[in-house]
Amino acid sequence: MRVRNKPWAEPYITAHPNWIVTNPDRWIGKWKERFPNPNQPLQLEIGTGKGQFIVEMAKKYPQINFLGIEIQTSVIAMALRKAVNNELTNIQFLHTDGIMVDRLFNQNEVDAIYLNFSDPWPKKRHEKRRLTSPRFLNSYSKVLSPDAPIKFKTDNRGLFEYSLKTFNNQGLVFDDISLNLHNSPENKNNVQTEYEEKFSQNGPIYQAVVHFNRKN
Amino acid sequence: MRVRNKPWAEPYITAHPNWIVTNPDRWIGKWKERFPNPNQPLQLEIGTGKGQFIVEMAKKYPQINFLGIEIQTSVIAMALRKAVNNELTNIQFLHTDGIMVDRLFNQNEVDAIYLNFSDPWPKKRHEKRRLTSPRFLNSYSKVLSPDAPIKFKTDNRGLFEYSLKTFNNQGLVFDDISLNLHNSPENKNNVQTEYEEKFSQNGPIYQAVVHFNRKN
Repeated sequence: MRVRNKPWAEPYITAHPNWIVTNPDRWIGKWKERFPNPNQPLQLEIGTGKGQFIVEMAKKYPQINFLGIEIQTSVIAMALRKAVNNELTNIQFLHTDGIMVDRLFNQNEVDAIYLNFSDPWPKKRHEKRRLTSPRFLNSYSKVLSPDAPIKFKTDNRGLFEYSLKTFNNQGLVFDDISLNLHNSPENKNNVQTEYEEKFSQNGPIYQAVVHFNRKN
Repeated sequence: MRVRNKPWAEPYITAHPNWIVTNPDRWIGKWKERFPNPNQPLQLEIGTGKGQFIVEMAKKYPQINFLGIEIQTSVIAMALRKAVNNELTNIQFLHTDGIMVDRLFNQNEVDAIYLNFSDPWPKKRHEKRRLTSPRFLNSYSKVLSPDAPIKFKTDNRGLFEYSLKTFNNQGLVFDDISLNLHNSPENKNNVQTEYEEKFSQNGPIYQAVVHFNRKN
């Protein structure tokens, strides 16, 4: 999502180096060390936006470490502020413009990936930018631990149809498919994003939970 | 679908042995011989109901032979009557209560399978009866020619979610997924069933086109 530029964002990020990383190379293979309890699973949200989802998840699941990745400065600053205000220690942020995760993490370093309402990039020529396109799936496969899930939700029908096809054609296993999440049994554990709360009256929310069928 | 018993149905079926088969064993491996042009591809609809879909398909695609399978006597008689009244020669029916197609056809004998608005059998203990459950998919794989599609449409969300999972996890390749067929580019070639025409205002029609990834 686009938000107006916030002059306070950059100084706020700089003032909170214990919560947010801007030099990811330094942390490859060592992300768990950024948390008080490094032995907890590490779950990733790619495109964490204003942070409602990941902050609520971190509150709900203190036994899991969460890392939110976001490109936009003003937006990640808002997410960071939510975590700081809630004094959450099991949440970290990564402010980076590179989202090929295999350059940021080692194999088995990530125990789940959340993709929430990712940009649909509807034009065919922008297919490569979709976070569920083959090159992104390939990069996820290089960092996820065995059987670790990718949890993807969107209200964009075209993106969901596309993603079901790419998940299938890239050999992922389907654990759960919901074509109307808010009207499904799975919804009892659903944590909503800002966008989801605002726009889910307009149509169904789709969700896919899938994992790579790795043999190692 | 259930319809009232029709006293004319059984005599009508008996009177049209050139259009409808009731002794399928006799035709295993020889289904194409039942058509004036045996060299045309053979496409199957399992659960052909009152026959609007397959009759319209046969009119639209004279270069394809169609075979409609249906269990209920009164229903298949209505389908048969539509074909007879339209004097279609590229359509045949099979009246049988066994729908494990690998007992009715040889490998490579079938060039497409249509599953339209199949009974959802929503209870978990009835999963085996769903026409997209693993044992049915396995039987389809034994009769389809290489890359032959299964085209499945339904308005039942639970059945479609289930079917996406079984298709994927049984190794089928997704060619096309539509989560709102009537609002998709694919709809221009869509031929509607009676049920679809009547009930599609109530919610989206889902469609999956998939095929087995056979190496032989």
